[in-house]
Amino acid sequence: MKDKSACLRQDEADRLRGLRGQFQLNDDEIYLDGNSLGVLPRATPARVRQMVEEEWGEGLIRSWNTAGWIDLPARLGDKIARLVGANAGELVVADSTSVNLYKAMSAALSIVRADAPGRTRIVSERSNFPTDLYIAEGLARQYGMTLELVEPDEIPAQLDDRLAVLMLTHVNYRTGRMHDMAALTRDAHDAGALAVWDLAHSAGAVPVDLNGAQADFAVGCGYKYLNGGPGAPAFVWAHARHADRFSQPLSGWMGHAAPFQFTPDYQPAPGIARYLCGTPPLLSMAALECGIDTVLAAEPLGGMAALREKSVALTELFIELVEARCAGHGLVLASPRDAAQRGSQVCFARQEGAYAIVQALIERGVIGDFRAPDILRFGFTPLYTRYVDVWNAAERLEQVLSEGAWREARFQRQAAVT
Amino acid sequence: MKDKSACLRQDEADRLRGLRGQFQLNDDEIYLDGNSLGVLPRATPARVRQMVEEEWGEGLIRSWNTAGWIDLPARLGDKIARLVGANAGELVVADSTSVNLYKAMSAALSIVRADAPGRTRIVSERSNFPTDLYIAEGLARQYGMTLELVEPDEIPAQLDDRLAVLMLTHVNYRTGRMHDMAALTRDAHDAGALAVWDLAHSAGAVPVDLNGAQADFAVGCGYKYLNGGPGAPAFVWAHARHADRFSQPLSGWMGHAAPFQFTPDYQPAPGIARYLCGTPPLLSMAALECGIDTVLAAEPLGGMAALREKSVALTELFIELVEARCAGHGLVLASPRDAAQRGSQVCFARQEGAYAIVQALIERGVIGDFRAPDILRFGFTPLYTRYVDVWNAAERLEQVLSEGAWREARFQRQAAVT
Repeated sequence: MKDKSACLRQDEADRLRGLRGQFQLNDDEIYLDGNSLGVLPRATPARVRQMVEEEWGEGLIRSWNTAGWIDLPARLGDKIARLVGANAGELVVADSTSVNLYKAMSAALSIVRADAPGRTRIVSERSNFPTDLYIAEGLARQYGMTLELVEPDEIPAQLDDRLAVLMLTHVNYRTGRMHDMAALTRDAHDAGALAVWDLAHSAGAVPVDLNGAQADFAVGCGYKYLNGGPGAPAFVWAHARHADRFSQPLSGWMGHAAPFQFTPDYQPAPGIARYLCGTPPLLSMAALECGIDTVLAAEPLGGMAALREKSVALTELFIELVEARCAGHGLVLASPRDAAQRGSQVCFARQEGAYAIVQALIERGVIGDFRAPDILRFGFTPLYTRYVDVWNAAERLEQVLSEGAWREARFQRQAAVT
Repeated sequence: MKDKSACLRQDEADRLRGLRGQFQLNDDEIYLDGNSLGVLPRATPARVRQMVEEEWGEGLIRSWNTAGWIDLPARLGDKIARLVGANAGELVVADSTSVNLYKAMSAALSIVRADAPGRTRIVSERSNFPTDLYIAEGLARQYGMTLELVEPDEIPAQLDDRLAVLMLTHVNYRTGRMHDMAALTRDAHDAGALAVWDLAHSAGAVPVDLNGAQADFAVGCGYKYLNGGPGAPAFVWAHARHADRFSQPLSGWMGHAAPFQFTPDYQPAPGIARYLCGTPPLLSMAALECGIDTVLAAEPLGGMAALREKSVALTELFIELVEARCAGHGLVLASPRDAAQRGSQVCFARQEGAYAIVQALIERGVIGDFRAPDILRFGFTPLYTRYVDVWNAAERLEQVLSEGAWREARFQRQAAVT
């Protein structure tokens, strides 16, 4: 097993180590929750201040043109496209992940209804992030289809001639299990269905190749590994073969072919721009751009492939250290042991006290999170997480478990606190 | 006709004059475009900085609880409720106006389909803001209904036994014409239909009494008279009689009865909270709260009634001055002459050169805007617009028209510029 000095040497040898300087980090804390909310990039406060004080305060309405506000959804979309194997012009930033999934799923279901009306099944994973299931549940009702939830291993058997859409989150939010996007998309296509992917825990975390996988639609989140800030806008992508064909139902003025003509009838913009709806929240967009840029800063150093390599090393190390040091404390690895099937997070299940242990660990400066009912979740962002952070986190987890402090009342769950 | 010194005296006597101090204003400019983007409140930069640097930068994921992020949609909603005649708990801030209209119209149409399935007509105003029409057009198709667009005077004749929903914007974005919400809602109800209102140009601009009018649903905008900043989130309201009855189709996790239980099936939250969908853009929410507070600051001085009184005085003065000073220059009042039918803006139509005249006026420091095809639009925000601003704006408009500089090539419209 590695010791602490080996971890420190590994940090020194890490060619990505300079990327950490992009972030405002508290050295007393180890933040392993970038998969819930990425940390603040150092560039963000000044950029947000510029938008607030100069572009809004002084430029006012003129800034739609003079500061390029009108271009932000496409400009940020083009930047994210570089991280997920999409081309410029294929992806826009807009709304929330939930709203974008509604658009993408509506378009996908419209295509199936037009091309293969007998297909009435939407299949997803039972432990998919709930908002995805809620959105699909409503659309299934609207389209007279069924939403069927299965375990990951059961998916291949579901790909039949009644399947309309396979809707999956690439990396599971609880377990970190990662699907093989290319293989499942090919299988869905072979079965005559479409594949819609949620990249919430993938974009900026693991290599994604949407065009390589021939995926149909995708959505993703701005505030996790893209470091866009709390509630940052999300993104939506459509494969070029679908982009001009269908409109999505949230036909707002920003997605119109000529938004400033103010014509009373809707004419969708060409391509992905029709997936815009209302006016975007620009302060949050400004922060998101700074966040995306922190990931793009890795491009000269190997980009997503290099980040992935480090991410795998971090998660392997954490599993190794925790399993060695916390043996006998009831933690069971809930993430895939095979790194190829794992995203950038590691989860352990514990029958008792998972919530309290996470709270006690936070008090010791290791910020992970709890996911009901029994999961301790740790996200590893290779942009700013060091090997020594992994070592320290495992050590403090061992301390919390050994000392039993998590059993104190103050760490127990209160009904009102999430 | 008033002279400039009379305007200055009127400003001195204005009991609302202190409210102007809440804003960062450039004294070289007269900003008459608060109906497109409200000006920057002085409190906003510090509040946004606090959210970015402290709540996000230091608090990180904990701020959902410790900084009350999770409460923002309801807290801001309760504040806006005070401005539009709604009760606390009836209104939430979320998404964009377009997305919220989709939710509200979907709920309204679901109600009609359940209670009165023979009703298949959605009626709106031909010159309603296009996004409203686009959203309604898509929903009409989805529900097998028709969207019929009429002139304001034709509305009463449309309220028949096939009417499902009367969908109107309270104050028209081009002309400033204001509908009688209480009368039209009553007439729609008498005809057995529902009334859905867009308050984009009303909230913070004119008194609105949603419960007094017994309206069914309403949406509105955060970045106009509420001064919430570019692309600020919007709001949605449902009358208490409808709030628990129907879900809207954007069934995201924030609108779930127990969002942190992560259950796979959707159970809508009680009341208006089910109109939330995804995670809100928090930096934009922080700015919006500061903007709403600038309007609430008028409450001790008479609130919306006092703001309305001043707004009417400002628009009356502008009409009087422009019609007197610019007579013979081809401007035709496009807003109602009767103040009771007019919102907080004044529009003039001009057959030729409306776009160029607005541009030339902007160069002289009077920021209004152009609305296709022939409208010069001037918004008057009583929180920060002075009588002397009105006087100066009319004077500069006269100068632009008299001198003919607007005919210069640099003021003419270029295809790419909106």
